[in-house]
Amino acid sequence: MNQLSIPASSSNTRGPAEHDIRDQIVAAANEHFSQYGYAKTTVSDLAKAIGFSKAYIYKFFDSKQAIGEAICANCLGQMVAAVEQAVNTEPVSATERLRRLVKTVIATGVDLFFNDRKLYDIAAFSASERWHSAQVYEAQIKDFIVDIVRQGREAGEFERKTPLDETVDAINLALRPFVNPLLLQHNLDFIEQVPTLTTNLILRSLMP
Amino acid sequence: MNQLSIPASSSNTRGPAEHDIRDQIVAAANEHFSQYGYAKTTVSDLAKAIGFSKAYIYKFFDSKQAIGEAICANCLGQMVAAVEQAVNTEPVSATERLRRLVKTVIATGVDLFFNDRKLYDIAAFSASERWHSAQVYEAQIKDFIVDIVRQGREAGEFERKTPLDETVDAINLALRPFVNPLLLQHNLDFIEQVPTLTTNLILRSLMP
Repeated sequence: MNQLSIPASSSNTRGPAEHDIRDQIVAAANEHFSQYGYAKTTVSDLAKAIGFSKAYIYKFFDSKQAIGEAICANCLGQMVAAVEQAVNTEPVSATERLRRLVKTVIATGVDLFFNDRKLYDIAAFSASERWHSAQVYEAQIKDFIVDIVRQGREAGEFERKTPLDETVDAINLALRPFVNPLLLQHNLDFIEQVPTLTTNLILRSLMP
Repeated sequence: MNQLSIPASSSNTRGPAEHDIRDQIVAAANEHFSQYGYAKTTVSDLAKAIGFSKAYIYKFFDSKQAIGEAICANCLGQMVAAVEQAVNTEPVSATERLRRLVKTVIATGVDLFFNDRKLYDIAAFSASERWHSAQVYEAQIKDFIVDIVRQGREAGEFERKTPLDETVDAINLALRPFVNPLLLQHNLDFIEQVPTLTTNLILRSLMP
């Protein structure tokens, strides 16, 4: 009953209680996937491990993927929050913001998907099957890039001849091996030199 | 006996006859892997398919990987030859040579590993396990880049402030998603825009 305790204050069917249970399922699934991997786990395994019935889990999530999506959305949300923190809290130059963006994306990506928790296979599914969470994440990273390039252009820090779209798309592509967890796995050997080498190349391409 | 016919001219143990048989084994293995995949095939399967005994194949190759290496070396050699042809046959500007390098690497890579033959899994093994053939290939591509950057610097086409090593390493990294077959598989959706976007970004970074 511990994990299932429903707050007395709950009044409607989509109230906080339901969110709490969803969160409990996600947290437990997160633990379980970290240990046993996402691909190899079934909803039945998960139900057994959490101590819920399979039917009960299905009341909250349509499928294993839906649980994976929730975990992934959390992780990617943490990455975006870390980038937001690094890039938007102090008034700094566009150059410095771009450097921080790349460093933070790589550091939090490695940390979340490869060090702390073995969540890599969820991230890989998310990226390869283009889950909603992955698409949202990519769009958010792109928004940061747009914002940084705009700032740099307005401040005269970056060149303005190339169409904004082209500049942003090209930077996005250049950063893809480190932004996309599926590609990041093949680039772990390079993450020491990369923040500097790739960022410097991008910054040289932006010189007025 | 057809596949095994030994030329009468053969005189020493490492003579042309041995090369012929090696080539026959490699060609037959190539066919077989293309159809059934490299990972799933054993040397026994291969022996059965070619009509040789397993022991006979082992006289020429130490392992399945050694056969895979030979196939890979052929493929990557073809890619290097295509790049060489595109980049070195006409006297053109460094800018144009860089464009041709990127286009040719992508076009031949897609063709060899993804279209014509399903050799992708050999290439993936080669790249992920850093086979000798993959290392040679990467070094050759890097040599082309060094040569092109040097030419561009000498002609005043490219900037000279950044250390040559850094420029070359950064370009190498930027092109890695398309040069490395393991990464190319994740980038097939992007190969239409990429030659232009990535090459333009690199070229902007090289502006004096």
